[in-house]
Amino acid sequence: MKLIATIRSPYKQKFGIPRQFGIIEGVHSRLEFEHNYGDEDALVGLSEFSHLWVVFQFHQSLREEWKSTVKPPRLGGQQKVGVWASRAPFRPNGIGLSVGKIVAIQCQSEGYDRTCIILSGLDILDNTPVFDIKPYLPYADAIDGAVGGFAKEQPETEFLVEFMPLADEQASSKSKQFDVDIKSVIRDILSYEIRPAHQRTTSGKVHRIRLYDFDIKYRYQDAVVIVDALW
Amino acid sequence: MKLIATIRSPYKQKFGIPRQFGIIEGVHSRLEFEHNYGDEDALVGLSEFSHLWVVFQFHQSLREEWKSTVKPPRLGGQQKVGVWASRAPFRPNGIGLSVGKIVAIQCQSEGYDRTCIILSGLDILDNTPVFDIKPYLPYADAIDGAVGGFAKEQPETEFLVEFMPLADEQASSKSKQFDVDIKSVIRDILSYEIRPAHQRTTSGKVHRIRLYDFDIKYRYQDAVVIVDALW
Repeated sequence: MKLIATIRSPYKQKFGIPRQFGIIEGVHSRLEFEHNYGDEDALVGLSEFSHLWVVFQFHQSLREEWKSTVKPPRLGGQQKVGVWASRAPFRPNGIGLSVGKIVAIQCQSEGYDRTCIILSGLDILDNTPVFDIKPYLPYADAIDGAVGGFAKEQPETEFLVEFMPLADEQASSKSKQFDVDIKSVIRDILSYEIRPAHQRTTSGKVHRIRLYDFDIKYRYQDAVVIVDALW
Repeated sequence: MKLIATIRSPYKQKFGIPRQFGIIEGVHSRLEFEHNYGDEDALVGLSEFSHLWVVFQFHQSLREEWKSTVKPPRLGGQQKVGVWASRAPFRPNGIGLSVGKIVAIQCQSEGYDRTCIILSGLDILDNTPVFDIKPYLPYADAIDGAVGGFAKEQPETEFLVEFMPLADEQASSKSKQFDVDIKSVIRDILSYEIRPAHQRTTSGKVHRIRLYDFDIKYRYQDAVVIVDALW
């Protein structure tokens, strides 16, 4: 497989990445073409599409050994399903599939160092290798009446997210730095249950998630997540 | 990339394959797992989903050289678009993406030689290597309001398809043999413009498409396609 592009995203570690694409719209990722694949001609017509499939490598989940079952977070991390009935990253070829909304296309001819596509809603780790991209075709890809097994609905939020004054202040400053509403992104990430099943009784313990260039420090207190600080 | 399965389909040649999946519902394809990947455990939960993504290799379209533009049939085969704005088979990694409806799952424990998934609506060539499969997640994959560039709508049928008495009789016999309405499948294939742009003035010439174990022999007469025989 040839590397055609790399994803640059604010998600710096697997933990805390939204469990499915499309959940966090405000976050922008950058698909950065390798020089030989970013030819401007290769992009003609793409701006007429609203969404783009990204076929990528789960590069931090590659394992020699393959297991036939996984325990998806959507089933509380306790129940097993077959790997072919899941989109879990641990799978024989480690291929991932995600769709992003096309925000902008930046070509080298416009003065950018590399040709890039800016996408929102991707759930892809920073520095992820990309093997292919394909335009989203609504008439074929949006299937009327398709049924979705154990993941029928968008996951529900489970937590109220509260910011301590320091975190609130730091979030405002980070929002300016990255031109995105950081409080709302953090709220979107932490309002879902993201802890593995065996860690769900850790009330009070300080957790961290790396996002953009900072760590989010937060704690659980029953159904509330308290964000203490961003470092 | 590891081969996890192979598609067995009635489409024996690239020419005449529906230009997008989902168009010809009546045709069943078989996804046949390699022995090591057809573990019954790996399929637990899959029967609760209605549709399945198939990530495959365009094995008859692999080329050393890569071209940045393609001429999609949807634009009459005359106009160029960028390869990244198309789903054309000629692309750097030759990866294809298609979705099929799950008709049946056959496990080795049920007496089958190999574990297979029977799918309808696939637009995949016979003997195609498969790299991955993923359940279709309606809440994430069916995007409300997505916009589809030059391929906004399902292609329109352009031809009336008529069967000569011999072809009609042969189609009835083939329908029993393959347990599918062969006349309707042939009609579905031939009612779309499938000729490359430079061959569209070949009125009267006899054409052939290989399907299942036979050739369809047909001719164009203005807006009518006449099926002469199946051999």
